[in-house]
Amino acid sequence: MTAAHKGVSASYADQLVMRIFSGIQPTGRKHLGNYIGAITQYVAGQDRGDPAIYCIVDLHAISVPYDPAELRERVLDTTAILVAAGLDPDRCVLFRQSDVPEHSELQWLLSSVTELGRLNRMHQFRDKSVAQRELVSAALLMYPVLQAADVLAYRAHEVPVGEDQREHLELMRDVAVRFNARFGEEVLVVPEHRIPEVGARVRDLQEPDRKMSTTGGSVQGTVLVLDEPKTIEKKFKRAVTDSEDPPTIRRGPDKAGITNLIEILATVRGVTPDAIEQDFADARYGDFKVAVGTEVAEWLAPVRERYDELRGDEAALEAMLAAGAEKARAMAAPTVADVRRVMGFGGS
Amino acid sequence: MTAAHKGVSASYADQLVMRIFSGIQPTGRKHLGNYIGAITQYVAGQDRGDPAIYCIVDLHAISVPYDPAELRERVLDTTAILVAAGLDPDRCVLFRQSDVPEHSELQWLLSSVTELGRLNRMHQFRDKSVAQRELVSAALLMYPVLQAADVLAYRAHEVPVGEDQREHLELMRDVAVRFNARFGEEVLVVPEHRIPEVGARVRDLQEPDRKMSTTGGSVQGTVLVLDEPKTIEKKFKRAVTDSEDPPTIRRGPDKAGITNLIEILATVRGVTPDAIEQDFADARYGDFKVAVGTEVAEWLAPVRERYDELRGDEAALEAMLAAGAEKARAMAAPTVADVRRVMGFGGS
Repeated sequence: MTAAHKGVSASYADQLVMRIFSGIQPTGRKHLGNYIGAITQYVAGQDRGDPAIYCIVDLHAISVPYDPAELRERVLDTTAILVAAGLDPDRCVLFRQSDVPEHSELQWLLSSVTELGRLNRMHQFRDKSVAQRELVSAALLMYPVLQAADVLAYRAHEVPVGEDQREHLELMRDVAVRFNARFGEEVLVVPEHRIPEVGARVRDLQEPDRKMSTTGGSVQGTVLVLDEPKTIEKKFKRAVTDSEDPPTIRRGPDKAGITNLIEILATVRGVTPDAIEQDFADARYGDFKVAVGTEVAEWLAPVRERYDELRGDEAALEAMLAAGAEKARAMAAPTVADVRRVMGFGGS
Repeated sequence: MTAAHKGVSASYADQLVMRIFSGIQPTGRKHLGNYIGAITQYVAGQDRGDPAIYCIVDLHAISVPYDPAELRERVLDTTAILVAAGLDPDRCVLFRQSDVPEHSELQWLLSSVTELGRLNRMHQFRDKSVAQRELVSAALLMYPVLQAADVLAYRAHEVPVGEDQREHLELMRDVAVRFNARFGEEVLVVPEHRIPEVGARVRDLQEPDRKMSTTGGSVQGTVLVLDEPKTIEKKFKRAVTDSEDPPTIRRGPDKAGITNLIEILATVRGVTPDAIEQDFADARYGDFKVAVGTEVAEWLAPVRERYDELRGDEAALEAMLAAGAEKARAMAAPTVADVRRVMGFGGS
């Protein structure tokens, strides 16, 4: 750990460190798509990031109807699953957003340089507000400003998120550029978008034309990281394939189900999809599905075991989050102090 | 001072104390209308409020274009003028909004129970956004949510503001009611609106059909609290009256200028307008105007002198604000902690 990324003593112009910021929704039910597409990326990011910052975004969760009693539980679930998967609180910054008041403070400050019309035109806001049966809250509109504050507070250089977040990323870049221009100082780092290369395309096992998802996917087609091994095996056994005759284990545009299984197994084994096709050249669909299910269940078993262990000790999880929040504040506070200074606020 | 209004140990259901909250814009140029309509009310409020809370709202100032270099100066100007006028930092809570991060934190939290459509329909937002030549900021829309947070953070019972703030007051009441209902606990106090009885109607001396104002009034018709005595006398000498024949010193619908002068002098002398009319029954307009000008100048002179003294010592003003912020946080922090608890956030 260099002095530079401890934040307090770092010059914000220092571009030698590569700070990576990821916001993670506090949903307990992580599925195989999340695991391959995001969680394994977070684990890998620890080596690349200096530091890699993982923020469980519970302040975002309140922009739509939610259950308060569940929220804290889901934060702890998420913490446990991330650590079980390999995040090391000593090698990264893992914390709960609401433990760091700099996020909401910066959100307000940045809202003064955020164009309102643009927030109203955001696709995610429009989709979500149409879908809202209850109150369309002010927080739903302001969501991207809080997201901008999340990233900009840490002067992160890189934000690895999916294509669906491109619009929000562009907004936070523009907010940073506008802020620096408005106040005549390069206070904020303009972050780069990085779309993770692999894994984001795990498909529902029952409806392989759609992405695996806990909110809209099929129950049988969604493999949860914490599913029992037998449940996982069963879900793969029942995976939808195709009616090609003769059936062949190869990827193809009309073979979404088989393609999905090939790519999952390639990830699990850490090999190329081609290698999987060769290995199973003569296999039948049924045998292939059993093989994938068995290997996925084995792959996830240690995560599940470690999760159970961690999740049982809430005090330890809270202590872990508190330590993470302390590290996070040490980075966010100097940014907010600089923002306040150039905006003309008091020095306290 | 009772234990109850120190906040930390107070039960929020405790209705025996009467907390009064006033937000004050950080503009240095306070005029006679502000002085009579608001500042003397603040001074009187110190005896009624338990405590009376005076918040210089610099976080609100950024919702429209502003000069960062000036903002801090204007906060100090405002602090000095309030204290010069009689606010006693030991008998009230006088602080700068941006020194208390609970305001912006609560703003975010409350935005989740604030109806977006309603913010879009606020008259002040619509007027101000139409008037905006530069960016219409997200902060402009969210202004009333921050205002709600200002008041609700202190569980204030009473908010003395003008009729033009009625819509914002109704919003904050509704936000408090909705919050308590949504989370099943009477965490927030629903504040009462109180329209100050006197003084809010000081008119421009040159255009007595409009309220005195530093933003849109006439320069000669606007008496600043910090104007030199001679300037004040001159402005009154040139005050517009009417062409009634014979000229009479009495109030009346077609006599906006004379009515204004009568009411100003009544306030300065602490008597009824009727008494002024009797005293000046035989006077000519010119003599009456000189009399009012002289008495107003004398009335404001000690404020101006004390202001100069206070404004010269910025370190002392900052120390005063820091002490006020500490008292404010001691009241706001328990509210935000309760809000966080019922919303399902962590306990840190």
